[in-house]
Amino acid sequence: MSNPTHDPFYSSPFGPFYRRHSPYMVQPEYRIYEMNKRLQTRTEESDSLWWDAFATEFFEEDATLTLSFCLEDGPKRYTIGRTLIPRYFSTVFEGGVTELHYILKHSKESFHNSCITLDCDQCTMVTQHGKPMFTKVCTEGRLILEFAFDDLMRIKTWHFTIRQYRELIPRSILAMHAQDPQVLEQLSKNITRMGLTNFTLNYLRLCVILEPMQELMSRHKTYNLSPRDCLKTCLFQKWQRMVAPPAGHPQNFKTEIFPTNHKKGIFIFSLTPCHCLLGLYTVYYG
Amino acid sequence: MSNPTHDPFYSSPFGPFYRRHSPYMVQPEYRIYEMNKRLQTRTEESDSLWWDAFATEFFEEDATLTLSFCLEDGPKRYTIGRTLIPRYFSTVFEGGVTELHYILKHSKESFHNSCITLDCDQCTMVTQHGKPMFTKVCTEGRLILEFAFDDLMRIKTWHFTIRQYRELIPRSILAMHAQDPQVLEQLSKNITRMGLTNFTLNYLRLCVILEPMQELMSRHKTYNLSPRDCLKTCLFQKWQRMVAPPAGHPQNFKTEIFPTNHKKGIFIFSLTPCHCLLGLYTVYYG
Repeated sequence: MSNPTHDPFYSSPFGPFYRRHSPYMVQPEYRIYEMNKRLQTRTEESDSLWWDAFATEFFEEDATLTLSFCLEDGPKRYTIGRTLIPRYFSTVFEGGVTELHYILKHSKESFHNSCITLDCDQCTMVTQHGKPMFTKVCTEGRLILEFAFDDLMRIKTWHFTIRQYRELIPRSILAMHAQDPQVLEQLSKNITRMGLTNFTLNYLRLCVILEPMQELMSRHKTYNLSPRDCLKTCLFQKWQRMVAPPAGHPQNFKTEIFPTNHKKGIFIFSLTPCHCLLGLYTVYYG
Repeated sequence: MSNPTHDPFYSSPFGPFYRRHSPYMVQPEYRIYEMNKRLQTRTEESDSLWWDAFATEFFEEDATLTLSFCLEDGPKRYTIGRTLIPRYFSTVFEGGVTELHYILKHSKESFHNSCITLDCDQCTMVTQHGKPMFTKVCTEGRLILEFAFDDLMRIKTWHFTIRQYRELIPRSILAMHAQDPQVLEQLSKNITRMGLTNFTLNYLRLCVILEPMQELMSRHKTYNLSPRDCLKTCLFQKWQRMVAPPAGHPQNFKTEIFPTNHKKGIFIFSLTPCHCLLGLYTVYYG
């Protein structure tokens, strides 16, 4: 075998070697059922390893997750890459959620060459919050998922566009406090924004600012260079690739050199490397 | 072939001919996922034929459904037979529910010779009510299901023991009416009893009283006999079977002659046949 990645002894179980391009036994929606089941097994002890395994089970190596919604100050759209997906799901729980599952109604499937698209216009993300009192939050919107068309059938892209949300409280609490205007006022205040906790919203904001700096972080981890040297070598390599782009990957060239959001690019380079690493540390380890 | 039921031209797709005794591809809990999906396809136009097809898809010919719960006046336990199961599910919606699904957490499975038992101590029946205002009712309890161990994998017994229920209302409604004590009082009143609407509760009560009279109803439908003649021929056949039980079915003998609940038996025979048929008509056609 000329290509070493085709040797089963050297390839990961999630690598291309083990994949057969056969249709999955069940419909792609079943994967969301499986994801819900996996989320049920989460406990207070589920650490970053648990969330990494979760993401590996359901998301491709190059997966992206996008959330679109409107806040008081206008429409928002956050896209995060694969490395930040585990932490996205864990922030949901860190923000006070005790249960999370997705309900898909009347979803449509379409098959293409190498992927399956699941388009669900009536998706509800249901979260249960224990504090300050029992609350169920139903966040409704359109979920569009792109799955790899193979045995693993993992998600390539996750796009959830939130339309509306509803916070539900037990009638019994109302019955207990109907005479107390102060408690009533407290009860009538939402604990999420568009169904998301501030914890998750802050994480998404941080991700979008800091994701372009991931290369620095990985360089720091791998070579144990100082933040300043990480930035230096990183810029040098980018310059090298600009001067002589590697053969066969012309499409990577553009995206790496010119971030789609120019503001972000400028922002990164106006920070000191220490700031960058501090920011990334916050994203990775909270 | 000596046995005509083994001829594929004469047997139903749900008969024994088409069944292979092989393990089902997926776990039995997946059947509840499928049931939830089927319930999603219900519309305002879903008639008794739709509910019959629903019950045929998920319940064996001789299935029973039992609900146990405590009301203000003590513990209740209702068991209904296969013919009354379609209507049980439809009464849920007739009682004002717009959505129904079951969530199973940490269920356990055990395999026996000819059936699979699914024991779920954390089952939630979720119903959504539109009137008088949006309400989500979460009815929690233990669901024990017995499935036939074949390709159809249908339910033989359904036993749901309700532990508690929670009626949830949107926080936004509370926010709107926080100043109005009358509306608040209305808002704090439950619309179900142990998660069940009065519509369903009445149906269960009727079923238990009227189920032993089903034979009369089917005789009336099949032979177009008068109610009085139905009762006559029915009693005559019962007497015949008492005197000379048919070979090979000794176990049917006892249950047909002596209803397990003696009170019910006495009640039936103290009603006139017209009363019986009127009662059954109510159960079947509402």
